[in-house]
Amino acid sequence: MKNLLSMEYLSNEEILHILARASAFEAGEPSQLARKYNVANLFFEPSTRTKTSFEMAERNVGCTVIPFDAGFSSALKGETMYDTVKTLEMIGLDAVVIRAKEDEYYNELLEGINVAVINAGDGAGQHPSQSLLDLYTIQKEFGKFEGLNITIAGDISHSRVAKSDAIALEHLGANVRFLCPPEWAGDFEAHHDWDDLIEDSDVIMLLRVQHERHKVNKDFSKESYHAQYGLTLEREKQMKDGAIIMHPAPINRGVEIDTTLVECERSRIFEQVRNGVFVRMAIVETLLKGRE
Amino acid sequence: MKNLLSMEYLSNEEILHILARASAFEAGEPSQLARKYNVANLFFEPSTRTKTSFEMAERNVGCTVIPFDAGFSSALKGETMYDTVKTLEMIGLDAVVIRAKEDEYYNELLEGINVAVINAGDGAGQHPSQSLLDLYTIQKEFGKFEGLNITIAGDISHSRVAKSDAIALEHLGANVRFLCPPEWAGDFEAHHDWDDLIEDSDVIMLLRVQHERHKVNKDFSKESYHAQYGLTLEREKQMKDGAIIMHPAPINRGVEIDTTLVECERSRIFEQVRNGVFVRMAIVETLLKGRE
Amino acid sequence: MKNLLSMEYLSNEEILHILARASAFEAGEPSQLARKYNVANLFFEPSTRTKTSFEMAERNVGCTVIPFDAGFSSALKGETMYDTVKTLEMIGLDAVVIRAKEDEYYNELLEGINVAVINAGDGAGQHPSQSLLDLYTIQKEFGKFEGLNITIAGDISHSRVAKSDAIALEHLGANVRFLCPPEWAGDFEAHHDWDDLIEDSDVIMLLRVQHERHKVNKDFSKESYHAQYGLTLEREKQMKDGAIIMHPAPINRGVEIDTTLVECERSRIFEQVRNGVFVRMAIVETLLKGRE
Repeated sequence: MKNLLSMEYLSNEEILHILARASAFEAGEPSQLARKYNVANLFFEPSTRTKTSFEMAERNVGCTVIPFDAGFSSALKGETMYDTVKTLEMIGLDAVVIRAKEDEYYNELLEGINVAVINAGDGAGQHPSQSLLDLYTIQKEFGKFEGLNITIAGDISHSRVAKSDAIALEHLGANVRFLCPPEWAGDFEAHHDWDDLIEDSDVIMLLRVQHERHKVNKDFSKESYHAQYGLTLEREKQMKDGAIIMHPAPINRGVEIDTTLVECERSRIFEQVRNGVFVRMAIVETLLKGRE
Repeated sequence: MKNLLSMEYLSNEEILHILARASAFEAGEPSQLARKYNVANLFFEPSTRTKTSFEMAERNVGCTVIPFDAGFSSALKGETMYDTVKTLEMIGLDAVVIRAKEDEYYNELLEGINVAVINAGDGAGQHPSQSLLDLYTIQKEFGKFEGLNITIAGDISHSRVAKSDAIALEHLGANVRFLCPPEWAGDFEAHHDWDDLIEDSDVIMLLRVQHERHKVNKDFSKESYHAQYGLTLEREKQMKDGAIIMHPAPINRGVEIDTTLVECERSRIFEQVRNGVFVRMAIVETLLKGRE
Repeated sequence: MKNLLSMEYLSNEEILHILARASAFEAGEPSQLARKYNVANLFFEPSTRTKTSFEMAERNVGCTVIPFDAGFSSALKGETMYDTVKTLEMIGLDAVVIRAKEDEYYNELLEGINVAVINAGDGAGQHPSQSLLDLYTIQKEFGKFEGLNITIAGDISHSRVAKSDAIALEHLGANVRFLCPPEWAGDFEAHHDWDDLIEDSDVIMLLRVQHERHKVNKDFSKESYHAQYGLTLEREKQMKDGAIIMHPAPINRGVEIDTTLVECERSRIFEQVRNGVFVRMAIVETLLKGRE
C-alpha cells in the first residue's frame, strides 16, 4: 500500500492487516517505524474528530506533525492540489492526510508525487479511515463479520461512505441492508420501515443527517425524521441481545438518535472515536513502513 | 481541584497553592508531573496572549499539545460542547483549555466528562487564569494582599472578571474600589472621579475598553474617555511611591492609558504577561497532578 | 545580524555566510545552536510554502515552535504590532517570523523588542528568505554569480522582491535584466520582448502574476499574457545549454509558464522549495546564534 485513497482499492487482506495492527496498538504494542517521519494534515473542510484523531495517531507512532493552515493556504491563490502536495514533498514531508471538497481530488496525485497520501474525505466521496474504524469496531465486538446483519440508516444516496462500507462488509461476509426515506434511496434497494430490520440487526449504523446539504428541514422536520427513520427509545427496546449502535458523528441529537441513547449500553459511538486513533495509527504506520 | 471553571469555586488555600507553584516555576523548579499528558486548546474566540501563554505553559510542564482548530471544527456543524469534549477525551486528551462565547458553557461539562477542563474565558463571564495571574503579580510585588488599596477602572458592569477579581482580592484581605462612568456601573457601587482614588491606590487595574461591544465611540469619544477615566500622565504623577499599574491587555493605547505609560517604571503590564506563563504552568500541573 | 528584515540591510558577507550554512545543512551538518529556542510564525496573510518551510526549518535546527493563529489573534482587536510582539517576548519566544500586509511593518519593532524578527514578507515589500533561497539556487547551479545573465520577468513595478533580488545579484556580480509589459515597468528600465533576452540568459526568473491584484484579466487575458510575456514551449527551446528556469510559486500554470515546463529538465522550481528549507535553517540558526 502506497496510499489510502478509497476502500475500493483495498483487498480483504489489506483491510485485515490494518485491523490487526490497530488491535496490536490497542494492546500497547509500539510502532514499528524505523525513524521519525514528517506528516501534515491538510483539511480544506471542517472536521473535529478526524483531524484531531490523525494528529494524535501520528504523534503516537512517532511522527513529527508539521502544521498546515488549509483555510489560509496558497490553494486560495488557485494553486493546484498537485503543486501544493509536490511543494510539501520538497519541504520534506513523508505523508499528507487530506480532506477536500472535490470528489476524487486525489486523482491529480497518482503520478509524480512521492509522499504517501491518505484521503480523509473527498467531497461526497470516500472516507476510508472512517470505514476502517467502523470495521474495527464491529470486528472487536463480534470477532467476525461472517453472517452479521448490518443495517445502515440515513441519506444513503449521497453517502459513498455508506456504499463503500457496504461493499467492504459484504466482501468480508456480512449481510448489509439499507434504511432510508424513499426520496433518499437513489439507485439503492432500501427498506423504508424499521419494522423490517430492527429485530434481527446485529449492528445499526446511523448516518449523520446533513443539515449542511438541507436534507432535513426541507424534506422533513427534525421531529418527523426522528419519528419515522431515527433510532427512538421504543426501537432500541426491540433490538436483540448483544446488538450495537454506531454513528460516525458529529451527532444530531434527537434527529438520527434519541439523545439518551447516545451513551446507552448498546452504543459504541464514543468507542468508535477511541478506536479511530488505533486504526489511524495502523494506517500511518502501514503506509510509511511500505516506503522503508 | 478537578477543573478550573470560575474563581467563585476556589478557596483561598487553592488560590495560594497555585500562586506558590507559579513562584516555584519562576524560580526554576521543574514540573512534578509523572508523565507526558495530552492537552488541547479550544479557542472559539480570538486571543493572542491567553492561547499562546497556555501553549507555552503546557510545553513547559512537559505536555504534548494536540492542535485543535476551533474556527474550523465540528462545532460549526452544530455539535454540542459536551460531544466535542467527550470526543477529545476518547481521542486521548487529558485536559482541555476552552474559550467560548457562551456564558458558563462549562455547565454542560460537569457530568460525564473525565478530562480536566480549564476555562480560558466564557463570554462576558469568568477568566480565572487571568484573575490568578493578576493575583500573582500583586503578591509578587507586595508580598501580601492584606490592607492593599486596589482600584479597578473601566467597564465594570460588563466585566465579571472585575467582579471575581474583586471577590478573590477581598477574601485575601485587600480593599477593592471601582471607578467608571456612571453609565457603566450597573449594580456596582463605583466612584466616578479619579480624585477620590488616585493618591492612596497601591494597585491601579485598568480594564480594556471593548470597542467590540461599542462602549467607546457610542457612549464616549476615545479622547473624552481618556481625559475623564483613563490613566493620564498627570494622574500617574499623583500615584504614591511603590504603586503599580496593571492591565490585562490587549491595550487601547491612548484610551485606558497614555501610550508613554505602557512601559513606565510603575507599569507591570508586560510583566503580567510573563507571570501568566508561570501561573498557567501551575494551573495545568495542579489539575493534572490531581488526576494521578 | 540581529534581525532579517530587508535584503537592503545585508552585506555580501552576510549573504554568503547564510548561503554557506545552507550548503552545510544540505550536506547533513547539524545545527550549531546550543539550546532549544522557542519560535513562532505570525502569518497575517496566506502562505503555503513559506510558512510550512519555516515550520520545518525551525524544527530541523532544534527549535520548539509555538503555534500562533494570526487570523484569529488580538491584532483583530486593534493591538499594535509592537504590543503583539512584545507580548510574545514576555511569553518566552526567542524569535518570530512575520508576514503582514503593511509595508515595513517591522519599523515598529526596531526599538524595545528583544526577540529576533524575521520578515517573511511585508505587503508589496521585501521577502528576504525568498531572495536568499533564489541566490542559493543560483549559486548551487553555477558556483558563482559573476558574469551571469539573469532575466527577471513579470510585474516588476509592484515587486520589491524583484528589485531587491536585482540589487543583491548585482552586488554579487551578476548582470540583471527585466522583462515586462510597458504598463508594468514603473520606474524600471525594462525590456518588452523576449527576443532580446531569451538566448543569452543563464537564469530566467519568472514572477507570479498576481490575480489578487487584478493584473491579469484587467490588463490582459491569461492567454495573451502567456503568448507575449510567458515562458512558452517555443521560447524554452531557444534557451542556451545549462540555462535554468526559476519561479517563486505558487505558479499560475499556463500564464507565466507553459504547464509542461514546470517540471522540465531546466526547471528549478520545486528544487527552489527544497532549497528554501536549508536557507531558512541557516537564517534561524544565524539569528539565534548571534544572540548566544
